[in-house]
Amino acid sequence: MLATIMYAAGDVRVEDRPDPTILEPTDAIIRVTAACVCGSDLWPFRGADAVTEPTPMGHEYVGVVEQVGDAVTTVKPGQFVIGSFVASDNSCPNCLAGYQASCVHRQFMSGSQAELLRVPLADGTLVATPGMPDADLIPSLLTLSDVMGTGWFAAVAANVRPGGTVAVVGDGAVGLLGILSAKQMGAGRIIAMSRHASRQALAREFGATNIVDERGDAGVARIKELTGGLGADSVLECVGTQESMMQAIRSTRPGGSVGYVGVSHGVELPGQELFFSHVHLHGGPAPVRQYLPELIDLVWTRQIDPGKVFDLTLPLVDAADGYTAMDERRAIKVLLQP
Amino acid sequence: MLATIMYAAGDVRVEDRPDPTILEPTDAIIRVTAACVCGSDLWPFRGADAVTEPTPMGHEYVGVVEQVGDAVTTVKPGQFVIGSFVASDNSCPNCLAGYQASCVHRQFMSGSQAELLRVPLADGTLVATPGMPDADLIPSLLTLSDVMGTGWFAAVAANVRPGGTVAVVGDGAVGLLGILSAKQMGAGRIIAMSRHASRQALAREFGATNIVDERGDAGVARIKELTGGLGADSVLECVGTQESMMQAIRSTRPGGSVGYVGVSHGVELPGQELFFSHVHLHGGPAPVRQYLPELIDLVWTRQIDPGKVFDLTLPLVDAADGYTAMDERRAIKVLLQP
Repeated sequence: MLATIMYAAGDVRVEDRPDPTILEPTDAIIRVTAACVCGSDLWPFRGADAVTEPTPMGHEYVGVVEQVGDAVTTVKPGQFVIGSFVASDNSCPNCLAGYQASCVHRQFMSGSQAELLRVPLADGTLVATPGMPDADLIPSLLTLSDVMGTGWFAAVAANVRPGGTVAVVGDGAVGLLGILSAKQMGAGRIIAMSRHASRQALAREFGATNIVDERGDAGVARIKELTGGLGADSVLECVGTQESMMQAIRSTRPGGSVGYVGVSHGVELPGQELFFSHVHLHGGPAPVRQYLPELIDLVWTRQIDPGKVFDLTLPLVDAADGYTAMDERRAIKVLLQP
Repeated sequence: MLATIMYAAGDVRVEDRPDPTILEPTDAIIRVTAACVCGSDLWPFRGADAVTEPTPMGHEYVGVVEQVGDAVTTVKPGQFVIGSFVASDNSCPNCLAGYQASCVHRQFMSGSQAELLRVPLADGTLVATPGMPDADLIPSLLTLSDVMGTGWFAAVAANVRPGGTVAVVGDGAVGLLGILSAKQMGAGRIIAMSRHASRQALAREFGATNIVDERGDAGVARIKELTGGLGADSVLECVGTQESMMQAIRSTRPGGSVGYVGVSHGVELPGQELFFSHVHLHGGPAPVRQYLPELIDLVWTRQIDPGKVFDLTLPLVDAADGYTAMDERRAIKVLLQP
């Protein structure tokens, strides 16, 4: 089969690899209908994470079940499925508490930018759709595997409430879908921090009521200005850098909440400033599995259309071009078709 | 009047000072019935905070109103009152949100280890008791000014729930009253981290069900062992150092909560570890004013007896001995009688 392999920073190749096989009775093999490039794939692509060996890439996927192990009971060959970017048993105490991305048996997925994918812990990881989806639903369903679920978790972690004021730091696909999530949860005002015209337009389409194009201290000052000097009730941090985290914390009112989902890189939070900020801080890898049934329903019934974040679709063989387009911010998010 | 002044690390003197006067129409002057030495007073005493000029000490107090400014309407001369260690207007948006310690007009109190005290924003800061208290209630009422309210906030910030498992890092007066608070909120199991016999005994009296005397990684391992490998639902951090914060974060289950109230000193939180920990983090200076009516009622009706943390009572003139006794951990908390 064809699969996408990263050899080093900037070096992504699509090449022939052996088909995956069932290794554990809890595995499933799916034929990938669509996969995509994640903002977090850019960390190693840009050299911010080391690539120590040729690495199969991709952790977002939708597809059709080809084969299941003997122990799998909830999905079967022929079904269209979506799974989380973290395989989970969905039955351990952490899963039952709603933190499937901290499942005691978790496995971070990789290798979905390929024709076939082995999914461990299939019963706890995959959810079948009500039937075979219309083709136009596939991009939106694909987002539920990570990016939409992650934006949703950012909004949950930031305690978005009906009528509340929300600010979103980061205008990548996660930030944009954080806006959509906050809107869906009834936020009164949603302030998007973005300086890119195309992303501002999509932010507004998803529900942003204000755009702030300043960053850092100037961005914080603008948020304060828009919120009576106090800061926002809920701030979604969707980048993962020191600057973005501090911008989020400083944009939040005392007693408000920061939901952070940008994979943390080089961040050190100053304890004393955090102490006196009085913010709530919560985040981490999103428990996407928890949200799949609810979000599948919202997509299936066409109440939300998160697939709009895909502004470039490429055949799998051109995956490398997709990385470059996202790295150069020419594309918000790239869908790959095997 | 007599007042306690810190001249430098280790140098505390009680000396004659001019009586305070009404400076603003919102001020009150109270005659201090009892004050005390706070764990946070030990930071400058130990040289961890700089003392740049002779500093009137003390921010915990109960007393009788002597005089009020023209604008004061809710307390009057002759009433017995308790106030927060942070003066607040109790009417700004942050106060109304329950974060009086982030009041937009807040003033951190100082100078309560004295015979008389000026309290700014008296209407928003002071609460009168139902009448003159019996003498044996005074220590417990005094704790509501800071240490008990701070332990209470730690438990609130850590989302203590009926039946939940709680761990408490720090066996100073705040940690011990965090135990009492968690018990009052219905916690199922309360694990106190302490290696001092007298503090362990008080911890048990306040509701601790388990004592862990290991610290650092070994302490975390013990908490995990006691919680099915997961960590506690709620962890109260009542110290403020790097070690205690990391011990708290690492002792918390994914999805659980750390409530931190130890004034942060030299703490830098590693973003990536925090990200993958999946904990909720909340804390800061306690909004004591919010809790005063409820906690006064619990003390007045003798449902709780937080005053047990005072194991040394000294006349005000001997305040310096109180600092030394707490610094050397010979006393948990020292009550001063003007």
